Parts: sequence; structure tokens; C-alpha cells
Amino acid sequence: MARIVMKFGGTSMAGIERIRHVASLVKREVEAGNELAVVVSAMAGETDRLVQLCREAASLYDPREYDVVVASGEQVTSGLLAITLQGMGLNARSYMGWQLPILTSGHTAGLIEGIDAAVLDRVFSEGGIAVIPGFQGVTEAGDVSTLGRGGSDTSAVALAAAMKADRCDIYTDVDGVYTTDPRIVPRARKLPVITYEEMLELASVGAKVLQTRSVGLAMRENMPLRVLSSFDDRPGTMVVADEALEEYNMERQLITGIAYDKNEAMVTLTGLPDKPGTVAGIFGPLAEASINVDMIVQSVPQPGSKSDLTFTVPAASLPQTRAVLEQVREKIGFDNFVTDTNVVKVSAVGVGMRSNAGVAAQMFEALAQRNINILAITTSEIKVSVLIAEEYTELAVRVLHSTYGLDQEAEA
Amino acid sequence: MARIVMKFGGTSMAGIERIRHVASLVKREVEAGNELAVVVSAMAGETDRLVQLCREAASLYDPREYDVVVASGEQVTSGLLAITLQGMGLNARSYMGWQLPILTSGHTAGLIEGIDAAVLDRVFSEGGIAVIPGFQGVTEAGDVSTLGRGGSDTSAVALAAAMKADRCDIYTDVDGVYTTDPRIVPRARKLPVITYEEMLELASVGAKVLQTRSVGLAMRENMPLRVLSSFDDRPGTMVVADEALEEYNMERQLITGIAYDKNEAMVTLTGLPDKPGTVAGIFGPLAEASINVDMIVQSVPQPGSKSDLTFTVPAASLPQTRAVLEQVREKIGFDNFVTDTNVVKVSAVGVGMRSNAGVAAQMFEALAQRNINILAITTSEIKVSVLIAEEYTELAVRVLHSTYGLDQEAEA
Repeated sequence: MARIVMKFGGTSMAGIERIRHVASLVKREVEAGNELAVVVSAMAGETDRLVQLCREAASLYDPREYDVVVASGEQVTSGLLAITLQGMGLNARSYMGWQLPILTSGHTAGLIEGIDAAVLDRVFSEGGIAVIPGFQGVTEAGDVSTLGRGGSDTSAVALAAAMKADRCDIYTDVDGVYTTDPRIVPRARKLPVITYEEMLELASVGAKVLQTRSVGLAMRENMPLRVLSSFDDRPGTMVVADEALEEYNMERQLITGIAYDKNEAMVTLTGLPDKPGTVAGIFGPLAEASINVDMIVQSVPQPGSKSDLTFTVPAASLPQTRAVLEQVREKIGFDNFVTDTNVVKVSAVGVGMRSNAGVAAQMFEALAQRNINILAITTSEIKVSVLIAEEYTELAVRVLHSTYGLDQEAEA
Repeated sequence: MARIVMKFGGTSMAGIERIRHVASLVKREVEAGNELAVVVSAMAGETDRLVQLCREAASLYDPREYDVVVASGEQVTSGLLAITLQGMGLNARSYMGWQLPILTSGHTAGLIEGIDAAVLDRVFSEGGIAVIPGFQGVTEAGDVSTLGRGGSDTSAVALAAAMKADRCDIYTDVDGVYTTDPRIVPRARKLPVITYEEMLELASVGAKVLQTRSVGLAMRENMPLRVLSSFDDRPGTMVVADEALEEYNMERQLITGIAYDKNEAMVTLTGLPDKPGTVAGIFGPLAEASINVDMIVQSVPQPGSKSDLTFTVPAASLPQTRAVLEQVREKIGFDNFVTDTNVVKVSAVGVGMRSNAGVAAQMFEALAQRNINILAITTSEIKVSVLIAEEYTELAVRVLHSTYGLDQEAEA
């Protein structure tokens, strides 16, 4: 017997037929003797519809009331799943975020501060199944709150930690985590196991299987995640701690996956004076405005001359970045503010990199052979990323996937 | 300054444009210096959609989970109205049924057992507007509950009583209560004032402007209601106690209105034995099955012979009525179970009837002159109803409207 959280995304909950299928997956786990909490998203498209209604109601909507409106999507699906499970003869009940309660730090993108698992312990002791709307909670003031888009994954992981679950199963519309995007590389392989850190790097660079926050939380709580499809029966991908890899008899790969992210924008400031404090005068105000600067390249100036500075920000932050820099323009003194959104960040990720030099060199070499120009570079302990022109996205991903030996063997 | 509950129905809340208009009506009352709680229905069609989802999920759905699902419609509109009001610079917040709380006796068609108005008093003392989802509450166990279809009117009246409001304004898609259905009688007049009892009789016989339960509650609480349209600025109809009529300078009319109800079915049992207990043996089991028997006609038998019994039930209860009577058929002993759904109940309603005999005679005379055959009759202190063939509905309503002098003067 295991204690498991099963989480189903919006595509899995889109309509009664699909909810019925989800119920059959839940039933299978019940019959295996497991204790279950089921976390559900709103039907696909519903949250977008509700957000749109809020925007139409007022351009600057109140977060408290926004949460009341958008939390309703998960309320509906959790009630419907409970009804469907009961219709199959199972003992299921829904519990809203305010009923458990799931306490959050605030509205709209609140953090989960605590979950009272007492209700769940009682439900399990009575042989019941708890159905919990994802994405929602309650503030200390007793108002409905939400966790920000994609928050249902985080709900599931936090709930799993609170109820000391053995595992958190994330059912989605893909059947696991792949070495790269299979639409670009048909020979991409599904990974049976991946570490939290690798998953975090892959998620943050564009492989959007799991919400980044939920993976970080799972890592802190050391909660094993399983990513699998609700639409087929294939095994999926386990996301575990580095130290747990051996349990899964996995040889540590040098590189686990190749990710890409087109939502970056490159900013170049030209004609910067070569004097102390210039760089701090630029990145200080950007940090204060919560603009996430990623890659930074500074040309080395000749003594006494001017230099250029290039960095990347999320494309969505570009207007704000421009506004912040225009405010400090006179103080800093630069000639031009040049932007380029036709760029892509391609990354190789793998915990094996730690004990193996030469990964970055291998990447630069492979890209150079295809005449792909590298605009910027950034590295972490388990990741090497390069910024290149967007038109080379597919070529670069395919070349790197092959370079690091990730291509699936051709079928015999 | 007055303390007012404003209630808006589903048609008034159907989409952001209409919600914006509702907000403008609320704003006008704020500017008049009034303290306001606003009760809202779900967008027109939304509750039907949610009920349908529950039905598809399981044919026998759990009332607790059904309530979780269907209560979401009002949650959405109350949040959206609060956002819209805030966008207009007003201090508005939504409070769910479980937040106030509005305590109900149970699920699906729960009765309101109590409303804590402390939150509202605080809101008003801070110059705020409370937006409350109609139709929903919370059970003593702390679960979301609903009041049954049309329950938002009842929410509004109960809330008005709890907060000691001066008046409860019901905004709907008609501009008041008419002497009869204007689609049948173009010269029907809008009534400036009507008593609770008259309204109850008119509602229960088919003039569906207000939910019957809400009128009964308003009568018990002596809460003045105002029925008016959210789509135009005409004055509407006040619903008040009999004793309050004078305040409105109203001459007491003999007859206030003519109503009709096509949802009746006529049942005739033939060949009943003329022995004690026969009638009790029929209506006892029907009452136990909660089947609402209205009109009853028994033919007077010759001594020792058999008789017929005719009565009406709501058409929707016909299958259940048949099932109940088949069970007691042998014990009672009757020849045939004959039904007729092509009937209509036409009623004349008016508190003036109490002090004036001859109203019924006038009705029978008028119908007889048109050769309309009366199948059954029932009367109360302020109502005379006849059952006739459905094909005479329009003719009978027009004749009676005219007979009692209700026709509007032709425009000069």
C-alpha cells in the first residue's frame, strides 16, 4: 500500500468523457490498495476564459476578486470528478482550498504557507478518496486565493509533502520528459529517470512539462515525482534526487537533455563609458524592477575608449527594460539601446557535467562546424547555454542532441 | 439614507457589458447615499450548463458535490461585479455564502437557517458595498450548499431581513408585475403595488416573476420588495403587506390579476366503491409521496353505486402519481386511471375578494357565456381558480381580465 497524490491537468479534465477516464485511472490505484488524494486543474481553456472576463471587467482588476473568479474552474472539475468517482461506487469527496485549508501567502500568485492534512488523514482512515482543486487556497484573512498560472502542479507537490505521500504522480498530455522536443528531433528518447536539478534547468529553458515552482518544491521536500500521460499506459518519467538515481539503476548520463527557449530578447547598449560603476548602474535598477537578466557579454574596451554591453531578458520584459534604462540613460551615458528578439537560447543539461570538463567546448565546436554564430554564453554547474539566431533553432537542437549521443537507436 | 438589497437575475448578469450596466445602477444608489448589499445570479444559462455536467457525470449525483459545482456560477458573477464596481472607483468586495456565512439546512434545496450580518455591518461602516452570490450558502458541516433553482431571490430577501434593510429591490428582465400576461392581453396593466398574498397566489399559479419561497419569506419578515427591470428606468411594482397598502395611496382592487398555469394534469379514477376510507386511501399515499394535489371533484354516487374522483397534480408528477395509485389499486378497487394534460388552471386573485362575495359567480357566468366548460374549481380566501381545456387559455384570460375591469384605458 502506498500513499499517492495523483494530479490531472486541464487537457485530462476537458469534458465529462475525459473526467470519466481520469476516474478509471483513480479506480485502478484504489484497487491496488493505495491511499489517494487527487488534485485537478480546470477544464482546458476555462482559466483563460475566466481571466479574460476579469480583464474585460476592469483593466486593473483587484487580485482578491480575480482569485474568486478564476478559482471557480477547479471548483467545478473537483466536484465533477467526485460525482463521477461516486458513480463508480467509490467513496470520494471534494475539499476546496479553504476547506482543508491550504493557506497561501497572498493573492494571484500566492505561495503555499501550510496545508492542514488532518482532514485527509480522517478521509484515508475511512477508506475515502479526497479530490482537491489545484491552483487554489485561502489567505489568512479567509479569502479565496490562487497560486498563479500552472499552480496546480505546485498544489499537488505541496499536498503530497503535507500528507507524507510516497509519490506524486503528475498526469499530463505528454507521456514523460524527453531528451529534447520530439517535434524537432524525432529520435528524441523518453527519459525513465531525471534529477530535480536537471528537470529545473530543462523547465526553465523551455521544456514546459512541469511548472518550475513545483519541481523546486519537490526537490526541497525530496518528494519523488512521476510524469506520465493520462491518455496512454506507458511508464512515464520519474523525477528524483541526485542521490536516488542509483535506486533506479540508472547510469549517470553526461547530458540528459537539450532544451531551447525562444522567449528571450537580446539588448545591446553601445558606447558605454569605461568607468567604475557603469555595470552596477545598469543592472541595479533592472534588478529593482524585478527584471530577470540572464546572459551578459561585455566587450573589453581599449583603455580610455567606450565599450558595448549585451544581455538577455525575457521578451515580455523588453518594454519595461527600455523604460528603466531610459530613466538612467543620462546618469550612465550610453549611445544606443539596440534590441533583437529573433534569438533563441539552446541549452545542454546534465548532472554528469559536474565531473566532466569539455562539455561546453564540445558544444561550441559542434555549432561552429555548422557555421552557427554564438551571441552569448552562460553556464551553471549542470548546464551550458548559448544564445544564437532564432533561425538556427532546429539545426542547433538536432546537432547537439546527436553530439551528446542522445539519439535513440534506430528500430531494428 | 436607506439600507437596500439589490438583486440582479441571470439575464441582467449575462456578460461583461450587462454587468457594467448593473454596476451603473449600483453606483446610482451609492450616489443617493444608500448602504448596499448586491445579490447576483449566475450568468443566464450557466447554471443549466453546470447542472447538465453533473447529470452527465452520474445519473444519481451526490447533492454535496452537485452544490460545489453549481454554486460556482454565482461565485464568478459576484467576483466580476466587484471588479467592475472597483473599476468605477467604488469600494466593493464579494463575500461567498461560506464567508458571511449564510447557513443552510442542507444541500441542493436547503433552507436558509441564519445569516450573520456582522461582516455586512462592518462593510457598511467602512462605506463599502457587499456583493453576495445568490443561491448559495454553507451547511453546518462547512460544505458549500445551494437553495434550489431560483434561490437567489430567497437569498436576497433573507439577506435583507438579516441586515434590517429598508427594502429589497429585485431587478429582473420584466419591469414589474402585471394584471396578467401581456403577451395574451396587450391591455394588461402594470400594478404599482401588490400584496404579498396576492403575489404568492399569482406566482404559484404561473406568473413567474418572483420565486414563491422568496415572497413567503418577505411576507413573514414584512420586507418590502420592489420588482423592476434592469433594462429600463420605469418604476416597477412594490410588493408589501396588506396593511401597508394605504401608505401607497392604493384603492383596494377587487381583483388584482388573472394568472394561468399549464403545468397541471387532470387525473380521473372511475368506478370507485362508495365506502368509508376510499378517499383517504387515495390521497394519503399521494401526500406521503409528496405529490401536490390541488383541485378535487367527486361525483356524488347514488346509494350503493360506484363513483368517479377527479383531481389535479403537477404534470411532472404524473408518472409518480400513476405508480403510487397502481400500488393501492387492489386495496381501493377502481376501474380506470384516466389522465388529461391538455388542461389549464386559470385564476383570479385579489385581496378585495375577502369582503366581496360574487367574484366566483361572476367568473362562472363570464366563462359560460363563451361556452367554456369548467372541469374543476378551487378557491381560497383571495383566489378563485378553474380548470378548463387548454385550448381556451387565451380566451378565458382575456374574458376574465375584461370582466373584472382590469383592461388598461385606451391611450387618449
